[in-house]
Amino acid sequence: MKRKKIVTIGGGTGSFTLLSGLKKYSVDLSAIVSMADDGGSTGMLRDELGVLPPGDVRQCLVALSGSSEKLRNLMNYRFEEGGLKGHAFGNLFLSALEKTSDGFSKGVEEAIKILNVKGDVIPVTDQDTNLFMELKNGRLLKGEEDINHDHTIETVGIKKNFLKPTAHANKKAIKRILEADLIVIGPGNHYCSIVPNLLVKGISEAIRRSKAKVVYNCNLVNKHGHTEKFTLDDYVDSINHYLGGKRIDFVTFNSKKPTPKLIERYESQKELLISFDPSLRNNREYRILRSDILSSKKVTFGPGDILAKQRAFIRHDSDKLAKILMMILELGDYENIIKEII
Amino acid sequence: MKRKKIVTIGGGTGSFTLLSGLKKYSVDLSAIVSMADDGGSTGMLRDELGVLPPGDVRQCLVALSGSSEKLRNLMNYRFEEGGLKGHAFGNLFLSALEKTSDGFSKGVEEAIKILNVKGDVIPVTDQDTNLFMELKNGRLLKGEEDINHDHTIETVGIKKNFLKPTAHANKKAIKRILEADLIVIGPGNHYCSIVPNLLVKGISEAIRRSKAKVVYNCNLVNKHGHTEKFTLDDYVDSINHYLGGKRIDFVTFNSKKPTPKLIERYESQKELLISFDPSLRNNREYRILRSDILSSKKVTFGPGDILAKQRAFIRHDSDKLAKILMMILELGDYENIIKEII
Repeated sequence: MKRKKIVTIGGGTGSFTLLSGLKKYSVDLSAIVSMADDGGSTGMLRDELGVLPPGDVRQCLVALSGSSEKLRNLMNYRFEEGGLKGHAFGNLFLSALEKTSDGFSKGVEEAIKILNVKGDVIPVTDQDTNLFMELKNGRLLKGEEDINHDHTIETVGIKKNFLKPTAHANKKAIKRILEADLIVIGPGNHYCSIVPNLLVKGISEAIRRSKAKVVYNCNLVNKHGHTEKFTLDDYVDSINHYLGGKRIDFVTFNSKKPTPKLIERYESQKELLISFDPSLRNNREYRILRSDILSSKKVTFGPGDILAKQRAFIRHDSDKLAKILMMILELGDYENIIKEII
Repeated sequence: MKRKKIVTIGGGTGSFTLLSGLKKYSVDLSAIVSMADDGGSTGMLRDELGVLPPGDVRQCLVALSGSSEKLRNLMNYRFEEGGLKGHAFGNLFLSALEKTSDGFSKGVEEAIKILNVKGDVIPVTDQDTNLFMELKNGRLLKGEEDINHDHTIETVGIKKNFLKPTAHANKKAIKRILEADLIVIGPGNHYCSIVPNLLVKGISEAIRRSKAKVVYNCNLVNKHGHTEKFTLDDYVDSINHYLGGKRIDFVTFNSKKPTPKLIERYESQKELLISFDPSLRNNREYRILRSDILSSKKVTFGPGDILAKQRAFIRHDSDKLAKILMMILELGDYENIIKEII
C-alpha cells in the first residue's frame, strides 16, 4: 500500500512535539519549518555569521532523528560558559554545514543524512528574511524576538504582518504541500512560529490548492498580550485569514483539564487556558475534535542527575496528538478516543 | 589471518598524514594522541569550558573517518566571524560530546561511532594536564603554546620537560602498546607533539616492554630555536632519552630533495632540511630506511574556489610513508622501494 503523505507546518517546540509522535507511524513525513527566528543562539548566529536561522530546523531534525539518544542530546546541548555560552550545539552544526555546503537547504540535507532522519525537514524559504509587525498605532515591531516580547500587540491591534525582504517558498515545500494527504498546522507560537510560514509567498496558495485534509492543532494556552482573549474560533479565523480562505477542515482541541496548581502557575504569567464554547457559533466550516491530548509528563531540567529538577508544563502529548491525526488521516476505527466531534 | 596491530604515537598534522595513509591497509590501527595542546581554538575551549584539548584528537578522527568528505570537511571547518571565530567545528563537536558524555574519552568513543572511524583514537591521558619546560637558565615555559613560540630553547638548553599535574596513561593506550606488532612514533613537532606523549607516566615503560618493532618517522625540516641543529641521529637520541632506553628499531628518512624554491622559502623561516651523514656514527642500534617519502601535492587554501590559493609544503606523503611502514611490518617483498638500508 502506498504510504500516506503528511506535511506539518510550524516551528519550535510545537513541531518537536508533533513530529516526535507522528514519526512512530508508517507515513511519509515532511516538516516545513519557519525561518523567521532571530532570538537567542539563532539570532547571534544570524548576526555574526550571516547564516540562516538554524534553531527551528534543529528541533525538527532532532524530533525525526533515528540516531542514538546521545546524538540527539548532543544536538540540543547548550554551552554554558565563555564565548560559546547559550549556543545550542545543533545550531553550530547547522551553521557550519551551511558554510561548508552550498547554502542552508543543502546543509539541512546533509544533516538529514548524518542524523538518520525519518522523513524530510524543509526550511519554508531559502531566503534571508525578517518578520515585521505593524501595529494600528503606527509602531513597527522588527523581528520575531521583539514581537515575541511585546505585550501591547493585542490591545493596540495589528495592522499588518509581513516579511522583508519578500520571501518566496522553497520549491520542495510547495511540491510536498500539493502532494499531501494531510496538512497539519501547529501547535506553536501563533505570530512567531505559525503565521510566519503563511507569510512566505506561495505557501498559502499551495495549501488552498492542495487536495489534502487540513488540520489545525489549536494551542493549549493563550499568549499574554498576543492572543490573550482568543477563543478556539478566533485562532481558526486568524489562520484562515492568513491562508486567504476558509481552508481548515479539522481542529484538534484538548478536553483534559490540567491540575489546578498548574493552571494557577500559568495564570500568574497571564497565560490562560484557551476557551471554547460550542454554542457561540453555528455552522462552523470545520469539525472540532475534542479529546485528551494533554501531556502528563514532567520535564527534567538541570545539569546532571543530582541537581536536576522536574517540572510539569501544559503541553501536548506527542503520542495522543499523533493518534488523533492518524485517525483523521485514516478515519473509521478511532471514534472511541474522541469525546466529541462538533 | 589475524590482522596486525599498529599503534601510532603523536598529534597534530603529522598524525593526520600518517593515519591517512595507514588506514588504507587492512590492519588494526590505534592512534595515541597527545593531550598537551593549549593554543588556538583548543586553548580557548580549555580555558572557557574547562574541557580537555580536542584539536589533536579531531585531526586523528578525521584522518581515520570513513564518512563522507562533507562530514570530514565539516569537522575541520573554522568559523570566520563573531564569537565563534577561529573555532574548528570539530573541536566544538568534541567539547560538546565531552559535556554530554561521561568525560572526554567517552566523548571520543561516541565521535568514533558517529564519524565511522576505521580504528581507534585514544587520548594518551584522561587527565587535565599542562606541559612545562624548564630551561638551563632557570626560566620556566608554561604550556605548549608558549614553548612552541619560544626560539631560545636550543641555545639556552633544556633542563627538564614535564607535565603538571603528573598525568597517568589511559589504560587502553598501555594495553594497545603492549599488544602492538608495530609502534610508530612521529612525524610531528618534537617538543610539542611527540615528547609530551612520552612524558605521560606509563607510556615509555610500555613501549620498552612491548615486543613490537618501534619505528621513528623522522621529521623533514628542523624547527627554528627548538631543534635547529639536530641531525637525524640527534632526534633518535632525544626520543630514546624520553623512552628511557635504546628502543627505536627503524627510522624512516626522506631521500627526495624538495625544489630549490621551496627549500629557500623554508630557510627564510630558519627551517632547514634535517641533515644526515651516515659516516658520523658507527654501530647504530637502529636501521635507517631512506626513500622518497616527500609529498608533491599542493595544498589549497582560501574560501571557495575562486579565491583559493595553492601552496607547496615540505611534507610527508601519506601513501609513500604508509608503504614503508607496511614494509617494515611485513618485511620481505618491498626492498625495491628502499634506496638504502643503513
